[in-house]
Amino acid sequence: MTEAEFLAALRTLPLHPGARGLLDDAAVLEADGAFVLTHDTMVEGVHFLAADPPESVAWRIVAVNLSDLAAKGATPVGVLLSYPLHPEAEWNARFLQGFGEALEALEVTLLGGDTVSAPGGAARSYGLTAVGRAPACGAPSRSGARPGDRLWVTGHIGDAGEGLAIAKGERIGPDSLTRRYLRPLPRIRFGPDVAPHVHAMMDVSDGLLIDAARMAKASGLALSIDLGAVPLSRDLLAVREDGRDLRLAAATAGDDYELLFTAPPAADAAIRARAERDERAVTVVGEFAAGEGLTLAHDGAPVPLPPRLGFEHRG
Amino acid sequence: MTEAEFLAALRTLPLHPGARGLLDDAAVLEADGAFVLTHDTMVEGVHFLAADPPESVAWRIVAVNLSDLAAKGATPVGVLLSYPLHPEAEWNARFLQGFGEALEALEVTLLGGDTVSAPGGAARSYGLTAVGRAPACGAPSRSGARPGDRLWVTGHIGDAGEGLAIAKGERIGPDSLTRRYLRPLPRIRFGPDVAPHVHAMMDVSDGLLIDAARMAKASGLALSIDLGAVPLSRDLLAVREDGRDLRLAAATAGDDYELLFTAPPAADAAIRARAERDERAVTVVGEFAAGEGLTLAHDGAPVPLPPRLGFEHRG
Repeated sequence: MTEAEFLAALRTLPLHPGARGLLDDAAVLEADGAFVLTHDTMVEGVHFLAADPPESVAWRIVAVNLSDLAAKGATPVGVLLSYPLHPEAEWNARFLQGFGEALEALEVTLLGGDTVSAPGGAARSYGLTAVGRAPACGAPSRSGARPGDRLWVTGHIGDAGEGLAIAKGERIGPDSLTRRYLRPLPRIRFGPDVAPHVHAMMDVSDGLLIDAARMAKASGLALSIDLGAVPLSRDLLAVREDGRDLRLAAATAGDDYELLFTAPPAADAAIRARAERDERAVTVVGEFAAGEGLTLAHDGAPVPLPPRLGFEHRG
Repeated sequence: MTEAEFLAALRTLPLHPGARGLLDDAAVLEADGAFVLTHDTMVEGVHFLAADPPESVAWRIVAVNLSDLAAKGATPVGVLLSYPLHPEAEWNARFLQGFGEALEALEVTLLGGDTVSAPGGAARSYGLTAVGRAPACGAPSRSGARPGDRLWVTGHIGDAGEGLAIAKGERIGPDSLTRRYLRPLPRIRFGPDVAPHVHAMMDVSDGLLIDAARMAKASGLALSIDLGAVPLSRDLLAVREDGRDLRLAAATAGDDYELLFTAPPAADAAIRARAERDERAVTVVGEFAAGEGLTLAHDGAPVPLPPRLGFEHRG
């Protein structure tokens, strides 16, 4: 598959009108409000396994970027893809398949990008820039938490980490968990909807504990997290015994792409009402107070911080 | 140098206000008109030499993207950088140096991006997304040329190609030519200024002939180019003998990052007046007509098309 053939295939995917059919040198985006921009790069052997299905690599590069948009309350507008052509035509075709599925499912269109040839044998890296429309209330930062705020998290934590271990052959478990690693579902609707109610928001990509600790530090506050409240899925509880070890593993595993946000107790009802609309789990897992540092508890007893709170060097 | 140290160094560079100090997960761009977005990736061994100075790699990733913005008449607003951390701290420091110099000189600020660790030994690739403000007249496409339009090019053609050959040790020549390869100067002011007068515009990155042929094809027109008119610099003419061979070499070498645009003869005066303002060369090198295909002439005699019009597989 040549670059021209790859480009021709890209043109059959959902394109943004401003993409100019991928026939020009740049995309044009008509403005009608503020935009949110984010870029994530995924490197083979660092952010995904060399053996991961190409469809999943494509899906994840879209999903992880849209998760960053959702965390800013932004509605996806378009993406620009940086793609190193793979020597195997089938790999490229399967990447395109997963990329198209992600664009369709996550309701975003292709704006542009760059397809490059890459020397054989090199570790591949895939980059995506995502553009979203900022919410009318303004894009929440990770530093806006206030004393007394509750720390909320969407969905379930730890499934993707277990799924990754299954994909690596380290553990045995159902496909539903592997799928949570291979095909994360960013909270593209919930993020914009909840944005007006939050003081701070970010996504959980490196691990609940490390990401929450970053939020507390950026906000200049102390944060206590109740491990007992960390929401675990039935799928995970079916293959792992509940307890402090599992909860620490889940809260430090990463790749969840759930939303982490803070809001005052007065916003509880509005947040729960929004979550009920699409039967999403949304859970209070902690509380902010004046001071600094992260403290953990489980069943009312203090738990020492683990040596590793999540992925520290993923960039 | 860790990712945290690299990020801390990035924070000392000129940042866009919407970058939120590179402390949040995404950038926010207030809109006041349409934006132009472009992304270019540069791969070691494909788009630059492994031995190129890190400062130049950094400069070029900014310059080639701003050249695409200029070709759409867009004024630079901000860039997002995808950077694989280099195992040598000095390499990172020198990249940062060149990157900062490019941001300053090319009058653009950093909006965000992603710094990733990369497995050792892999060919590195650097990505940049550039955002610009679209011109009020609308961003010209590469497909807008009309019959009777003249084909114009800015500056000189072929210096960068000669500079690359010197950098590779294939030829001997002055630093001024090498610098045209290592530190291209995109036409960031001329592009927006000339945009209201053009029918079509793009930049010369893969070679004058191949890029002009793409413009003619996209516009559904025939194009004749006079090799004798291709503007060559005094520096180039000092080391190479003028003639058809040099002119073909210059017009197929690439890496010029000059602007290629079309306009009706009635726009001649306005274009020349704008060029005189900053003493820039701007030259008519061809003419469009109904039909299709590229034809070449030199000193009034037809010249057969060379087998290679420029870089075809650079993406």
